[in-house]
Amino acid sequence: MQRVHNFSAGPATLPLEVLQQARDELTDWNGSGMSVMEMSHRGRHFMAIAARAEQDLRDLLAIPPNYKVLFLQGGAHTQFAMIPLNLLRGRASADYLDTGDWSLKAIGEARRLGGVRVVASSAANRYTTIPPQAGWETDAQAAYFHYTPNETIRGVEFHQVPVLANAGIPLVADMSSNILSRPVDVSRFGLIYAGAQKNIGPAGLTLVIVREDLIGQARAGTPTMLDYATFADSDSMYNTPPTYTWYMAGLVFQWLKQQGGLAVMAGRNQRKSARLYAAIDDSDGFYRCPVAAACRSWMNVTFTLADASLEPVFLQQAEAAGLSGLKGHRLVGGMRASLYNAMPEAGVDALIDFMADFRHRHG
Amino acid sequence: MQRVHNFSAGPATLPLEVLQQARDELTDWNGSGMSVMEMSHRGRHFMAIAARAEQDLRDLLAIPPNYKVLFLQGGAHTQFAMIPLNLLRGRASADYLDTGDWSLKAIGEARRLGGVRVVASSAANRYTTIPPQAGWETDAQAAYFHYTPNETIRGVEFHQVPVLANAGIPLVADMSSNILSRPVDVSRFGLIYAGAQKNIGPAGLTLVIVREDLIGQARAGTPTMLDYATFADSDSMYNTPPTYTWYMAGLVFQWLKQQGGLAVMAGRNQRKSARLYAAIDDSDGFYRCPVAAACRSWMNVTFTLADASLEPVFLQQAEAAGLSGLKGHRLVGGMRASLYNAMPEAGVDALIDFMADFRHRHG
Repeated sequence: MQRVHNFSAGPATLPLEVLQQARDELTDWNGSGMSVMEMSHRGRHFMAIAARAEQDLRDLLAIPPNYKVLFLQGGAHTQFAMIPLNLLRGRASADYLDTGDWSLKAIGEARRLGGVRVVASSAANRYTTIPPQAGWETDAQAAYFHYTPNETIRGVEFHQVPVLANAGIPLVADMSSNILSRPVDVSRFGLIYAGAQKNIGPAGLTLVIVREDLIGQARAGTPTMLDYATFADSDSMYNTPPTYTWYMAGLVFQWLKQQGGLAVMAGRNQRKSARLYAAIDDSDGFYRCPVAAACRSWMNVTFTLADASLEPVFLQQAEAAGLSGLKGHRLVGGMRASLYNAMPEAGVDALIDFMADFRHRHG
Repeated sequence: MQRVHNFSAGPATLPLEVLQQARDELTDWNGSGMSVMEMSHRGRHFMAIAARAEQDLRDLLAIPPNYKVLFLQGGAHTQFAMIPLNLLRGRASADYLDTGDWSLKAIGEARRLGGVRVVASSAANRYTTIPPQAGWETDAQAAYFHYTPNETIRGVEFHQVPVLANAGIPLVADMSSNILSRPVDVSRFGLIYAGAQKNIGPAGLTLVIVREDLIGQARAGTPTMLDYATFADSDSMYNTPPTYTWYMAGLVFQWLKQQGGLAVMAGRNQRKSARLYAAIDDSDGFYRCPVAAACRSWMNVTFTLADASLEPVFLQQAEAAGLSGLKGHRLVGGMRASLYNAMPEAGVDALIDFMADFRHRHG
C-alpha cells in the first residue's frame, strides 16, 4: 500500500493511526463481537463511545458547561436553515458578514427563511480580504451575527474572533473548515457549527455547540428534526444518529489529545501554512496567492500559476507524484492545498519540493 | 474474535463478508492511496462508487427509469417532515394508516406541518393486527396515502401492497425496516423511503425512491435541504453526502446480488421467520407471539414469556450464549428478534436451540 498525500478540501485526509485503529476494530469492537456499525445506539457499548467522544471534544475546546454539544446530520447546509429557524426568535433580522462563497450560501438560505442584513462584503475585491470592522453596518437589534471564520474555497481566514459593539448579540460561526485547528474561546460564541468532513471525521456528521439559553425558541412550524431542542433534550439520540461517523469523530478527538491538544495543532498548522505561503511568495511570481497576507488561511492555501496554461500539467504531475486533491474549487480554478490537522508536515514538505522542482523544469 | 449473533432492531447486523471487505479497504481503496472516507465526493473514485451503488439498487428493486433514487441524511424522522412539505401540493390533507408506533410518528409530524386524515387504526387491539381494508375511510382527494409496511416495534408487516380505490393517489411507504427483504413492485408507489440502519448499511443514510412527477412542488418556505428537488437535480450531491455510509450501502447491494437477489432473500427471510414463529407457537404457551398470524413480520419477531419474571433471565443467558440485542423495545417490553437480511439462518437456529434449552430448564 502506498498512501498518497491528500490535499482535498473535504472529505479530507484523516490521521493514518485513526484509520488503522478503525480497520483493526472493524469486525469486532473491543471484544463486543460486533462492529460499531452494528451496535444499537441505545446499547451500553455505543453509549460509552458517544459519551467519550463528547467529553473529549469538550476537553479539547474547553467547552463551558452551559453549552450543549449536538451530533447532527445534514451538513452545514442544514445549519444554514436551522440557524434562522431557531435563532431569529421573533426579531426582524440577523446580521451576516459576507466574506465569500460559504457566507453567501448561509445568507441565501437565511434570506429565504427570514430577514437578513449584510453588514459588509468583500465581494468587490473578489473575496481576497476581510472587510475592515470599522465599516461594518451592524444592527443593534440583530437576532444574531453570523460569519464564516474560514472560507474554504478562496482560502480566507479570520485570525481573531470579532468583538461586536453590542456584546449581547449572539455570535454564530460556521467553523466547518477550521474547527479544532487552534484553541478558540467558545464562551465568545452563541453557536458554533461544523460539518465533520474536514477536521472532525468522515462526512455525514455535523457538530453544533450552542449556548443553552438559545435553545427552545424555534419558530412555529419548524420541523421537529430542525429544532435544536429536539437534540438537546435527547443527548442527540432523538432518532438513530450516524453512529459510525460519531465513533470515527471520537477517534479523531482521541488522536488530537494524544498530539497534545489544540495549542500544539495551532503551532503545527501555522508552521505548515507559513512554509507553503513562503514557497509561493518566494517563487519570483511563478506561483501567486491572491489572498491578502493578513487573512491567509492556515487550512486552505490557494494559488495560481503565472502561466495558467501550465496548471493542468502541474495538477497531473502532482497527482503522479502522490500529491492528490490539489485542484482549486470549480468556482475559482487554480490550485488549493488543504492543510487540515491530519495533513502531516511531511506532506507539506513534499508539496513544496514538488513545486520547486516543477518551477525548475517549467520556469 | 468471536462474533455474536446480533438481533438488534437497528443499527443491526451486517454481512460479515461486507465488513471484511470494508476492513481490507479501509486505509487504501482499490489502490487509490486513500480511504473511501477521505475521498472528495466529486472525485472520480467516489463518483464511481456512488454510481455503482445506485445502479445495483436499481437492479435489485427493478426501479423504473421515471423514479429518482436519492441518498439523503436525517433518517425516516426527517422524511416524516419532507413528505408533507413536498407532497401535499396545496391539497387539504393526506391519508395515513395507523398500524403502530412508526405510523404514529409519521402522523404526528405531518399533523404539525399540514392536514392529516387517519383512515384506520389498529390501536384498539394494541397494534397486533392490520385494520381490514374494507373499513378504511379514505379520501378521494387525498394528496397521498401513507403507510408503514413493517412496524419494527411490535412486529407487524403487510404481506401485500394495498390497492387503493383511487389509483391516482400516490402511495407512500416507510420501508425502513423491510426494504430489500423481498421483491416489491416499485411502480405501485409514489414514494418509498428507508433509513439505512436495518437492511441497507450503517446509520446516517436515508434512501428515497420517488416518482419524478412528484418532485418540485415543495411548499413555499421549505428549507432547501428538505426539498426533494435539491437532491434530484444534483444526483444527491448538492452538498457533501455521507460518503462512507453510501459506500457501505453499495457493498451491501453487491452482497445482495451475489446472494441471488431479492427473490432469494425473500425465501430465506420467510424461512427464518417461519421457523422462529413455529418454535414460539409450539412451546405450549411458554413463549407467545401477540401478533395475528396473517401480519406477523418476517423482519422483527416479537414474543413474551408466560412467566414475565423470567424475561430478564432469558435475556441475560441469551447474551451469555452469544445471542445479542433480543430485548424488546422499551415501549412494549418482552423480546424481539430482528431477522434482517444479514442475519444468517444459523443465527436463527442458534436462537431456536437456546429457546428450547431455556424452556427445558425453566418450563
